[in-house]
Amino acid sequence: MRIDVLSLFPNMFAPMRESIIGKTVERGLVDFNVTDFRDYTENKHHKVDDEIYGGGQGMLLMPQPLFDAMDAVEKEAGNRGRVILMDPAGKTFNQPMAEELAKEEHLTIIAGHYEGYDERIRSLVDDEISLGDFVLTGGELGAMVVVDATVRLLDEALGDDRSAVDESFSTGLLEYPQYTRPADFRGLKVPDVLLSGHHANIATWKQKEALRRTYQRRPDLLKNYEFTADERKLLKEVEQEERENNL
Amino acid sequence: MRIDVLSLFPNMFAPMRESIIGKTVERGLVDFNVTDFRDYTENKHHKVDDEIYGGGQGMLLMPQPLFDAMDAVEKEAGNRGRVILMDPAGKTFNQPMAEELAKEEHLTIIAGHYEGYDERIRSLVDDEISLGDFVLTGGELGAMVVVDATVRLLDEALGDDRSAVDESFSTGLLEYPQYTRPADFRGLKVPDVLLSGHHANIATWKQKEALRRTYQRRPDLLKNYEFTADERKLLKEVEQEERENNL
Repeated sequence: MRIDVLSLFPNMFAPMRESIIGKTVERGLVDFNVTDFRDYTENKHHKVDDEIYGGGQGMLLMPQPLFDAMDAVEKEAGNRGRVILMDPAGKTFNQPMAEELAKEEHLTIIAGHYEGYDERIRSLVDDEISLGDFVLTGGELGAMVVVDATVRLLDEALGDDRSAVDESFSTGLLEYPQYTRPADFRGLKVPDVLLSGHHANIATWKQKEALRRTYQRRPDLLKNYEFTADERKLLKEVEQEERENNL
Repeated sequence: MRIDVLSLFPNMFAPMRESIIGKTVERGLVDFNVTDFRDYTENKHHKVDDEIYGGGQGMLLMPQPLFDAMDAVEKEAGNRGRVILMDPAGKTFNQPMAEELAKEEHLTIIAGHYEGYDERIRSLVDDEISLGDFVLTGGELGAMVVVDATVRLLDEALGDDRSAVDESFSTGLLEYPQYTRPADFRGLKVPDVLLSGHHANIATWKQKEALRRTYQRRPDLLKNYEFTADERKLLKEVEQEERENNL
């Protein structure tokens, strides 16, 4: 997969050289490029922004530098790929979108900073993506989040010891509480059942505690969840126990 | 404000030295520290993770290194501040949370990587925060998003030319389309009204187009929006126009 990012702060993308994402780049699984679109300005002072027609606070990114940076990507890569604009007014990013993007051969992400975009920049764009209902100083962190969530899904990126499916949101439930050694840490103990070696009891406990955590924290996820008969029974128990705990 | 992050990948936090956030750090408005909790391991090989009790793929972060790193933060800062765990099972981050965090004097953010957390680590924590319904390779990018959204709200961070309130999500509507020079770029033109100099018409256009964009993309935001009488009328026009456009 080729990934291009158009940004005014190429140094911000240092995290993409670290850890799992960095390894996919090193192994040639992902060809990750950041283009500083300030390099494509045609004005003397390398200005990338200008005042807003009709008034308004702040400045807007001008179309010209981004259009020309996009042309440069197209010339180098042979195509623009799927073009994504990081924007608070975009669709809220989620796991199905990451799965869809992971199938692409080429993604080009426009990450503006601070200011808004001249509306005409949207004519370059296939998808507008927002990270969530909060305001950031720029689109750089959002672009990195999209890249991270997408690249980790590429088959080889995760290695053999962990599959991408055994995770919150891909099963549809939150993960059950998990424990590692020691069994007693500063008086905080691991539940007995997990130390029992009784596989069936452990499996039931995990199933039930995943339902409990989801019930407590994200009941909205249960609405569309396809329950097995066992899970329905466990959820009933959870509901009763939680009602009793809350009395 | 003091911000501590506990992470295994301190180099990933390079973006916090850039741009607006970097400037707040330079100006002493924010004291930003990253602690590598691997430095606090007590075992010979500086292992931070171990197998999961009761089985399960992958590894879990052990309690000891994080508890001891937290003690070290407390010793240096005099307190732990408000402790936040980046976790997919946490509450979804949003603007009101950023506003709440911006009032704190000290935040300590635990950013795990790849693996899950031993459940006992949650006993250190005041808030568990998730960026959204997607899976990342670690909590580092999430921690940076939380820091960015929070620090930009600190009064002085934005400077005089732009106030934090004139943004999507803080007005409750998405932003109207905005344009800067040139009025005609490769045949893509700025709407005439914005070039007219007619202030009342421009103000109405902006109001209406903000409503239109919100209606088209995030109708959920309109449910809790407190309309003025003018806005109600404009929304009716938008609804009619959009229905006609979709015929």
